[in-house]
This record gives sequence, structure tokens and C-alpha cells, in this order.
Amino acid sequence: MPLLIVGSVGIDDIITEHGEARGVLGGSSSYASISAGFFDRVNLVGIVGDDFPREYLDLYKKKNIDLSGLEIIPGGKTFRWTGKYHENFNSRDTLEIHLNVFETFRPKIPAAYSKTPYVLLSNIDPDLQLSVLEQVKSPRFIAADTMDLWINLKKNKVKELISRVDLIVMNEEEAVKYTGESNLVRAGRTLLNDGAAFAVIKKGSHGAILFSGKSMFQAPAYPLDKVVDPTGAGDCFIGGLMGYLAKSGKTDLASIRKGIVYGSVIAASNVEDFSLNRLKTLTRKSVEKRYREMREMTKF
Amino acid sequence: MPLLIVGSVGIDDIITEHGEARGVLGGSSSYASISAGFFDRVNLVGIVGDDFPREYLDLYKKKNIDLSGLEIIPGGKTFRWTGKYHENFNSRDTLEIHLNVFETFRPKIPAAYSKTPYVLLSNIDPDLQLSVLEQVKSPRFIAADTMDLWINLKKNKVKELISRVDLIVMNEEEAVKYTGESNLVRAGRTLLNDGAAFAVIKKGSHGAILFSGKSMFQAPAYPLDKVVDPTGAGDCFIGGLMGYLAKSGKTDLASIRKGIVYGSVIAASNVEDFSLNRLKTLTRKSVEKRYREMREMTKF
Repeated sequence: MPLLIVGSVGIDDIITEHGEARGVLGGSSSYASISAGFFDRVNLVGIVGDDFPREYLDLYKKKNIDLSGLEIIPGGKTFRWTGKYHENFNSRDTLEIHLNVFETFRPKIPAAYSKTPYVLLSNIDPDLQLSVLEQVKSPRFIAADTMDLWINLKKNKVKELISRVDLIVMNEEEAVKYTGESNLVRAGRTLLNDGAAFAVIKKGSHGAILFSGKSMFQAPAYPLDKVVDPTGAGDCFIGGLMGYLAKSGKTDLASIRKGIVYGSVIAASNVEDFSLNRLKTLTRKSVEKRYREMREMTKF
Repeated sequence: MPLLIVGSVGIDDIITEHGEARGVLGGSSSYASISAGFFDRVNLVGIVGDDFPREYLDLYKKKNIDLSGLEIIPGGKTFRWTGKYHENFNSRDTLEIHLNVFETFRPKIPAAYSKTPYVLLSNIDPDLQLSVLEQVKSPRFIAADTMDLWINLKKNKVKELISRVDLIVMNEEEAVKYTGESNLVRAGRTLLNDGAAFAVIKKGSHGAILFSGKSMFQAPAYPLDKVVDPTGAGDCFIGGLMGYLAKSGKTDLASIRKGIVYGSVIAASNVEDFSLNRLKTLTRKSVEKRYREMREMTKF
């Protein structure tokens, strides 16, 4: 079944200790969509300027992504972000941010998309995420991502968002900040109490925890001996999870667990190269191979 | 089959943000032995003064631990450590340390113990750990733990130790320090290259990774919503792992994986109260219940 993804599309400049990449494809929904596209058709809603490189539009199309919801603003400039990672990728600084056309983004869900059964609200302003929920008709399963910025600026809106989605995903720092709980078990419970049926706390190279009612699922990250660029790992994770769910047509706990492992595998592959370069050539067969390895690595 | 454990026995004063415990049982081999005792008979080799409380000797006996290798020095004072944990237990300071009789500890393995098939060298000076290896006759499986102090002071001895044991265990910081590799996959490989057939890197609340030849096993920690005192968690972990192996009489990869999960379960239970208080009343049935929960929590 198709999957609607709404989020940011941008051009990034990424600087690491071991190299840099300039003018590369970025944005939360670029990562999420290309990851989800491994499984099923993605309806992408976003905004770019007419400076947005043709090659990236072609990449989207090649990767199973419908672009009729992507606004291209004539004369507009695409959202641009420059980030620099510190040693060991433990933290990063935003060196420059130019919202450009993204500043005026008001997601408009095309009529043809309004009944898309699976909906992923990638990380953008929670007011915009909530506006999407007003435009979709009885979706089967809604997932939302967010970031520290929105927890700082608009905590009540994030809270409203959580109460209206099926699955909320946060990284460890965001979950601690949002809930005020430094213990992740308690943080996960708080997210459920705020109304999401499922909550995922991402722990980077330490994996992710899924909370749901009385059960917990602990997924390790796919182990890597080299990280090139961690940008977009979390977006690939939730994109892969939602893509798998959309493809399976299910929303049950066992399917969400499987989706988490698929999301982890694609996220790990993505950080092996800059931007989305690794996913350009990653095959579904490689994804399945690493999925089986994950099963072998956790068996006891 | 019996298990020989050599390490420190001490009396601790533990201070946390939420409370403190004075004059409580501590030492690497106390935690490891009581944890291992859940599975099989433990032959403990250590040293204390005659101030060592009778109640702790009684606890050892009750917990399946043979004390004929525990030297009690007349007129001597037992090793004493005072530690203070920072907020969230992310780090701790040693406020006081009195080696006392431990300063003169030269492990003497009683003749009756010299053929114990399973050997755990708990965290003590690597020179003393190596001296134990000179005294044991063809053990089936040897595991060793260490700490940052010995990596700083006696790295070559730690390296020699690794080359002579079947399993080396380190926490994340120790593995990074010892190997010079900040990536844990590479750090684990380096430990294997140095001669251990198996290497375990402990990641605290994020679980542990077992490295062996081409395979990796990723075990989560048993999730807790409250930590009271993390002292000895790593010792309980390796004690439980070795106790399970000794009981099973096996040394294969599948058994080591199971042992890691048992070790994780006992370590998690132990941190729910000060010192070894929780393990005093913990039942084998509770351990089995949490083991089954761990299986359920990792299934996909």
C-alpha cells in the first residue's frame, strides 16, 4: 500500500573529520522516502526551488517516489544546510542554515494522496505536521518524527502531535528532553501516556527500543566498522520501518518489530557514505542479507 | 562443573544521589561469585582481614561458595573502598581506597582447586591473574576481566593475559583505551587478534557485544526503570556467564550467548539495590523469568 511522506527536502554541505561533501541531497523526507522506496511506492510532499538539481529529481523517480506533491517554486531557492561533525560523530554543529523556500512551506496534500493509508510525518515544524493530519482521510497508521528544536520551541504542539499519531519516534536526547526522564524505560512510558500507541527511542549505534503497552522490543544497530556520514540515519530508520509496514499492509506489533530491523539495516548502510550515495546502489538483496545477519546476531 | 574465581573481596562505602550504604560487601569476586553461585559451585580464592564480618562469610556459604581458598589474615584489615556516583550514574569518583591485606595478596590456589575446569580471573592486577594461570592444571575455559587502571599501568601484562585466556571482557571505555579504536567493531577485532577466542565489550545499559571469529552477538541489557547502585554490575555479568557455562559443562558459542543473557539478567537485578542486597533474595525462578523476557524482547 502506498505511503505518504511529508517533510523537508534540501541541499546539504557536510563536513567531517575525514572528508566533506558539498551540494548533496538532504532533508528529512529525502532520506525517509528513498529508504521507504526499497519496499513500496512513496507519495512525497515537500518544497524546493527551481535550483533543485534535476539529477535528484531523477533519483527520486528511480527510487519509487511519486513527485506530484513536490512543489517546485519558480525563482525560489532550495533549503540549504551546512553541518560539521566533531570527532567520532558524537555531535555536530550547524554552521549555516538557509530556509529559503522552506520558510513558506505549507504542506498541501494532493487529492490523489489524501487517502494514502500509511502516513509518515518526517521532522518538520509540528504545526505543519498537524496541518497534514487535517488533510488526510482516515489513514491506517501514522508515524511522526521530531527534533530537539521543536521540543524546545513548541513542546505543547509536539505533545498534541504525539496524542494524534500511532507511532512517535525520538532519539535518546530528545526523549529525555521531552519527558524530563533520564531513564529510557520511564521516558518510553511517558511517550505512551501522552497518547501514541507505539514509541521508538533511537540510540544511534546502540540500537533502538520500541515501547508498546506492556511490551518492549530491543533492536541492536547493524554493527559497522566505519562511519562516513551519519546525516539522515534516523530518517532512513523511520522511512524503512514505514516502508516495510506499508508494503506488508499490516500494523501489528510483530510487523513493527520487523520494520524496525529493516529500518536499522538501511540506516546503517546509509551512513557508510556521504548523503544518500550508498542507497543509490544498495540492493534489496543486500538489505535482506543484513536483515538475516541481524537475526543471527541476536539469537540465543 | 565447579568454577574457580580469583579476585578482590572488600568492604565498600557507596554514596549515590539518592542514598548511601556503609560497610557493605564488595569486591570483584564477591559480586562474580554470588552471581555464579546461582548456577554452580564456586571455589573462591581471595583475601580478607579478621575484621571481615561473619555475616558475609555466611552469605557466601549460603550462596554455593566454597571458602577454603579465602585467606583470613589474623589481625589484618579487609580491603576498603569508598565511591561516590554522580547524577544518573554516568560516572563515579573513588573517595577513599585502603588496600590493607589486599596489598600483600598473592593468590594461592589450593591443591583441591587446581583442576577446577572453569576459571574466572576477576578484576585484579594482571600479574596476579597470570600467577593463577601458572597454578591451574589444564582448565577447559578461562575468562578474565580487567579495568582502566591496569590498562594504564600495565598494558603489556594485560596483553599477555588476553593471549592466554579464552574470553576477555572489558567495558566500552576500557576496550577503546586498550585498543586505541573508538569503533567497537574494530576494538572487538583487535581483542581477538591479541589472542582471546572470545571478547565481550560491555556497554552498561546498552547491553553487550560478543565477538568471536567472524560472528558477533548483540545482547541488550535487561531494561530497568530504576537504578539504585551500579557497583559490581560488570562482575555479576561475567560471574553469571561463567556460572552458566560451568553448570552446562559447555564452551561453545551458543552456550556463551546464553550465558551472556543470564549474566545480563543477574547484573540488572543486582543494580536494583545497594551492594549485593538484591541477590540475597533473588531466586533462580526470577532469573529464569527475566531470561524468558529477554528472549521475548529481542524476537523478530
